Amino acid sequence: MTTPLTAVALQLAHNARAAAASLAVCSGESKNRWLAAVALGLRQNTAAILAANQQDIEAAAAAGLSKAMLDRLTLTPDRIESLAKAVEHVISLPDPVGEIIDGHRRPNGLSVSRVRVPLGVVFFIYESRPNVTIDAAALCLKSGNAVILRGGREALQTNQALATVLTEPLSRCGLPDFAVQLVQSAERELVGELLQLGRLIDVTIPRGGRSLIERVTREATMPVIKHFDGICHVFIDQSADETTALNIVINSKCQRPGVCNAAETLLIHRNVADTLWPVLAAALRQHNVQLRCCPDSLALVPAGVPATEQDYHTEHLDLIMNVRIVNSIDDAIAHIRHYGSAHTDAIVTRCLEAARKFEQLVDSSAVVINASTRFNDGGELGLGAEIGISTDRFHARGPCGLREITTYKYIVRGDGQVRS
Amino acid sequence: MTTPLTAVALQLAHNARAAAASLAVCSGESKNRWLAAVALGLRQNTAAILAANQQDIEAAAAAGLSKAMLDRLTLTPDRIESLAKAVEHVISLPDPVGEIIDGHRRPNGLSVSRVRVPLGVVFFIYESRPNVTIDAAALCLKSGNAVILRGGREALQTNQALATVLTEPLSRCGLPDFAVQLVQSAERELVGELLQLGRLIDVTIPRGGRSLIERVTREATMPVIKHFDGICHVFIDQSADETTALNIVINSKCQRPGVCNAAETLLIHRNVADTLWPVLAAALRQHNVQLRCCPDSLALVPAGVPATEQDYHTEHLDLIMNVRIVNSIDDAIAHIRHYGSAHTDAIVTRCLEAARKFEQLVDSSAVVINASTRFNDGGELGLGAEIGISTDRFHARGPCGLREITTYKYIVRGDGQVRS
Repeated sequence: MTTPLTAVALQLAHNARAAAASLAVCSGESKNRWLAAVALGLRQNTAAILAANQQDIEAAAAAGLSKAMLDRLTLTPDRIESLAKAVEHVISLPDPVGEIIDGHRRPNGLSVSRVRVPLGVVFFIYESRPNVTIDAAALCLKSGNAVILRGGREALQTNQALATVLTEPLSRCGLPDFAVQLVQSAERELVGELLQLGRLIDVTIPRGGRSLIERVTREATMPVIKHFDGICHVFIDQSADETTALNIVINSKCQRPGVCNAAETLLIHRNVADTLWPVLAAALRQHNVQLRCCPDSLALVPAGVPATEQDYHTEHLDLIMNVRIVNSIDDAIAHIRHYGSAHTDAIVTRCLEAARKFEQLVDSSAVVINASTRFNDGGELGLGAEIGISTDRFHARGPCGLREITTYKYIVRGDGQVRS
Repeated sequence: MTTPLTAVALQLAHNARAAAASLAVCSGESKNRWLAAVALGLRQNTAAILAANQQDIEAAAAAGLSKAMLDRLTLTPDRIESLAKAVEHVISLPDPVGEIIDGHRRPNGLSVSRVRVPLGVVFFIYESRPNVTIDAAALCLKSGNAVILRGGREALQTNQALATVLTEPLSRCGLPDFAVQLVQSAERELVGELLQLGRLIDVTIPRGGRSLIERVTREATMPVIKHFDGICHVFIDQSADETTALNIVINSKCQRPGVCNAAETLLIHRNVADTLWPVLAAALRQHNVQLRCCPDSLALVPAGVPATEQDYHTEHLDLIMNVRIVNSIDDAIAHIRHYGSAHTDAIVTRCLEAARKFEQLVDSSAVVINASTRFNDGGELGLGAEIGISTDRFHARGPCGLREITTYKYIVRGDGQVRS
């Protein structure tokens, strides 16, 4: 039974599949030429993009979207220039396709190498920020993948203007026409249809709230790169330097509290709680951080409020910090393993043994020694750019750059060898 | 609503989860000590294992299992010795856990490295061959993963005897008790319950027929490493050396026709069909291979039968070979892309341009130049051992060795760096 919607989904996926086959063997030069054309197109079409964006903003304001949502939706000349710069940065990254990952010669003379190739077709689902339209397309095409983009309904006019900039230069740069496709329909059901096409789409990447990711994971028939909670910890060991502890705690919590690699919970070794915790608390209070404290930490700092069990399980994404005094590094690690989400966890210490123990026993996508949790980010870790941060263990863990949306094939070269 | 079966599944998974946490930090020495104890245990308990196996064989024979199935089920002293040797070979492989995959220093002085860690809990589902019980446990534990084993019903007595050998030395070698668990129940529903526990089990690996893999893929809430068809091709280019072509075709088709990396289809360049095809056909006929031919190849070799469209889509796993004469290397590649399963495809050529074109445009897990398709195998490609061959593109592609059942974490070491 083919409904009209199923037919639309099939057409999108077949187009992308065919585009992926030729995109996989496009030269890096062609891909970079296209990226340069996109950057230029963004600058040349700034007025048209802003006009489209204005329509979306007015509709969204009329529909009563929150101020924060409206800000996420809004493009400005500066933001468009930043987008163009981000695209130009992708030009400077090495082409991941064709990288020889490793290789060796077998005793029988066969040369075996693993060569990086694109995953194929990426289905990218995201909420209102329209800059993702450009970022995702740039990263997918640079890594040789065709992409189907499905942005938020509120940003449809903006996304269409941006999609024009993306698709217009494709063919004259030697890339297939359907390398980038924007899902035009506002129908939610079309997403469901596309999620059924696991034989044509290689991976789905949802970027947005928990309910979006849960829905996609439930319905998808292809692998999904998921991005769930970051319940991140900073543990102040008994040997921690006071200034280092202060800088790292404030930065981890306050530099950008609304993101997944911001710290939610502060753990402090009992041996330094008396001296360090009041200093840390005063600094956090100066940054308007609400402190949710265990009984022992509350006794030392009455400005806090009692933490509930649920607090330690919560990604506040706000100027709120859970605090607990622990008896040992082992208790800190046990707390992290129990309450954490294996995203990013940091220790502040001057003790080598403690650092080694922490990095071995904490199994998070990033384990940080004497630095801010905020460094678990594709740009900061040297991936060049990121398409998301995976909370999965399978295929890609932590920041996903170009490499994480590729796979590999074995090339086996011989001189007539057969198996005996 | 917790049924008794749900409770059993939860207990198994929780046991495995807890075991995985401590197994992840067990030393390579402990794991190797356990492997040595398993090899010894196999040799010392040969009589008990054979007795248990005899019970399974008798029950299976009474139930009317085919001769081939009975052979797969049967252990002999030699087969047990081979199992012990395979376990000893795993000792010799490097411990994948703790491998520093890559790393670098950031401009701000942070040291960033990616370190290999276990996936966690592996659920291994397999059909009647009891040797998988030993192989899978050895590879999972060597890579720091806890494993839940679910073998075929026909092999239950044998698997229990083998599981005793696996579990008995665990604690005295310093490994957690529940690092290996055999699902004792013969109930099919228990598998369904375990497949629901995606939050406790990190990956499911089904090894068996298509219907098993399809069922697991449909029901699983965790990633699955799938092993579907190998529709493998050998393309004889116009520049192919006759002897090389002959050796590779015969080896790819006949050396072990029942496995996934055996060739199913022979493609021959039209320019050499007149001279080469009759020679190849005669050799294949001598090896009792039935030839299913396109009209042109049938005209040259009347001993064949006409191929149907469906034949080219079929993994025969038998002494049957599809044959097609093609006009060019491009037609050969188009045939492979259309009919193949992206498993293993080989070219026989003396032309560098053809070799380069073939390796770039054929996107299979192994692309083979002048060698047998049979080399797409973990042992033959230098992985040391294999737990299966993945037909997925995500996470693991082609042969899966120890590395493919691991993931990584980032270790970030600083001196107080914060993000600005």
